[in-house]
Amino acid sequence: MGEKTFVLAPDSFKESMTAKEVCVAMEKGLRRVYPSANYIHVPMADGGEGTVQSLVDASGGQLFEQEVMGPLGQPVTAKYGILGDGTTAAIEMASASGIHYVTKETKNPLITTTYGTGELIRACMDKGIKKIIIGIGGSATNDGGTGMAEALGAKFLDAEGNTLPRGGGSLDKLARIDVSSLDPRLQQVDLVVACDVTNPLCGETGASHVFGPQKGATPEMVLHLDAALGHYADIVKQQLGKDVKDVSGAGAAGGLGAGLLIFTQAVLQKGIEIVIEYTGLKQKVAEADLVFTGEGGIDFQTKFGKTPYGVAKAAKEEGKKVIAVAGYIGEGIDTLYAEGIDAVFGIVPGAAELDKLLAEGPENVERTCENIARVLKFNQ
Amino acid sequence: MGEKTFVLAPDSFKESMTAKEVCVAMEKGLRRVYPSANYIHVPMADGGEGTVQSLVDASGGQLFEQEVMGPLGQPVTAKYGILGDGTTAAIEMASASGIHYVTKETKNPLITTTYGTGELIRACMDKGIKKIIIGIGGSATNDGGTGMAEALGAKFLDAEGNTLPRGGGSLDKLARIDVSSLDPRLQQVDLVVACDVTNPLCGETGASHVFGPQKGATPEMVLHLDAALGHYADIVKQQLGKDVKDVSGAGAAGGLGAGLLIFTQAVLQKGIEIVIEYTGLKQKVAEADLVFTGEGGIDFQTKFGKTPYGVAKAAKEEGKKVIAVAGYIGEGIDTLYAEGIDAVFGIVPGAAELDKLLAEGPENVERTCENIARVLKFNQ
Repeated sequence: MGEKTFVLAPDSFKESMTAKEVCVAMEKGLRRVYPSANYIHVPMADGGEGTVQSLVDASGGQLFEQEVMGPLGQPVTAKYGILGDGTTAAIEMASASGIHYVTKETKNPLITTTYGTGELIRACMDKGIKKIIIGIGGSATNDGGTGMAEALGAKFLDAEGNTLPRGGGSLDKLARIDVSSLDPRLQQVDLVVACDVTNPLCGETGASHVFGPQKGATPEMVLHLDAALGHYADIVKQQLGKDVKDVSGAGAAGGLGAGLLIFTQAVLQKGIEIVIEYTGLKQKVAEADLVFTGEGGIDFQTKFGKTPYGVAKAAKEEGKKVIAVAGYIGEGIDTLYAEGIDAVFGIVPGAAELDKLLAEGPENVERTCENIARVLKFNQ
Repeated sequence: MGEKTFVLAPDSFKESMTAKEVCVAMEKGLRRVYPSANYIHVPMADGGEGTVQSLVDASGGQLFEQEVMGPLGQPVTAKYGILGDGTTAAIEMASASGIHYVTKETKNPLITTTYGTGELIRACMDKGIKKIIIGIGGSATNDGGTGMAEALGAKFLDAEGNTLPRGGGSLDKLARIDVSSLDPRLQQVDLVVACDVTNPLCGETGASHVFGPQKGATPEMVLHLDAALGHYADIVKQQLGKDVKDVSGAGAAGGLGAGLLIFTQAVLQKGIEIVIEYTGLKQKVAEADLVFTGEGGIDFQTKFGKTPYGVAKAAKEEGKKVIAVAGYIGEGIDTLYAEGIDAVFGIVPGAAELDKLLAEGPENVERTCENIARVLKFNQ
């Protein structure tokens, strides 16, 4: 029997380790038992937080910083990545327009803007990027992506021809959208939007009703924002000929989903599928004897598109076994076995405070993987 | 390939599950993967707390209750077991004379007595028992086993011929030991004392110096008790011709080790070895494909005679693999691999309060064993 090949494809363990650090800890543990095996690191993500880092790590790319406008107009330093191929960029909208930039006191979805996200897209195009992967979770905004479009040259005008104040709360006064100065490079760039939600732009299951409250919207604000986005969609349909109101995912990130569909060549795709594609996971899994994955927490929700689920699906297509490790094992993991996650192990060594566990994540992953490997070795 | 046979030989998980309950949880998890395997339950202990319960459970014996004198003279309800053979009993001295019967305020090793332990021995003899296994951990006493002997008929007299007050603090006034009324059945009963400590009766490493403080002895009391036990040993040597002062283990349980050696046909033996013998572990392990063990906590100290170590040693003599599960994994478990514990898994699913983890022990053992079994199944 030749040397074994292990593919290590975990997500990050939030607040404890990046996906790359998890890979390193996994290898360290496994290597004690299989010292001359091949270890293929595929730091993963699911389109949410950590996606840029993982895509950069998995492809040997590079992170960049860019000062952009935050959701409340304040300057913030956002990160984006250029992948190892040099022509694909990865952005997380939250890095420019995320909910972590507002406080309980300042959060106000009437005025928060995705302008900074548009600036990030522009920064990528300035570097000659041909394809942008954009994760859109964790937004502070409800502006239908109008801020993003404005940063790229679109103008949102009222009946008197004045530029509207930024934020979704002003869109009820939208009379005209001027795209004459929209950056023409937008039509040459492929945008792949990591979007796991299916919410439409408006209505009971739309952006304002479902996600508005967590961004600070009162019941009155929700109604105002929902109506404003509806009006915005009507104007778009009239003047730009695009009907986005009922598109699945248009309501993601306060309607940034819609904005990207309107003003760019965006396609929406499940986050985990994008990451699997751009990390080359499937080809790597094909070479594996066994696949390890993991995430900070694993429970029945894992099967709704989280990384271990995606990794297991990819592995199963190649007929490979998958073992997951997790910092927290929640309810219903027995439903994951049928999804291709063959075994799940917790890494926590005993009763302890969360802070301590987060700090000692690497050694706990290492120990757990070593012991899994010791059992794997039994039958050889 | 025929059906697998799994031997399940865990200790109790203190404050969470008896060893028998751990066996049940282990089987439940494993059976999901190996539904028609053979499961041999061997609830274990190491001579400490839980030993009576495990020996009774492993042998199909029965528990009995007996009202006896507690360490401070108060009545307490002690438990003892009669094993499945009907002729062997198991006692834990702590059940009669344990530290849990005294409080921070009342603990006083000058006066605490092992009288109740002697009453338990008598109760067993009254039932026609031929052999008594006695675990001596967790004592509140420092009386050299004189209370135990008194309950069985010995008299400890001062120079005036008066009976001494109970407790180690009075032994400095011991002038004569009268064994004329000592229960003659004691010479027909085999006593097997589970004793893992090697402390002599007296001196710097003796009972009073090492264990006295945790029983409430002040530095002055330690000196008093140590001298009193020394005097006691001198009288024993003179009058009974037994020299126990420097015997390894004589200092166990406040000198109860010495008392048993003096007044009974006791032999001291490592706790885990006794349990292995009386549970028939070795013969059962010989039939196993794989052995599971476990304990509430596992760390480098496990190799100093704790249950998983003993189980691993027995399994290794038969060339069998051993997997351990634990509620808490401490430092240095990598030193256990060389001792025959092939793999160790924590059962804790994530950051949580100890109370919650103790309550959900069975489901966590079950889930962990199920997932271990899923990995075991990989290569079949």
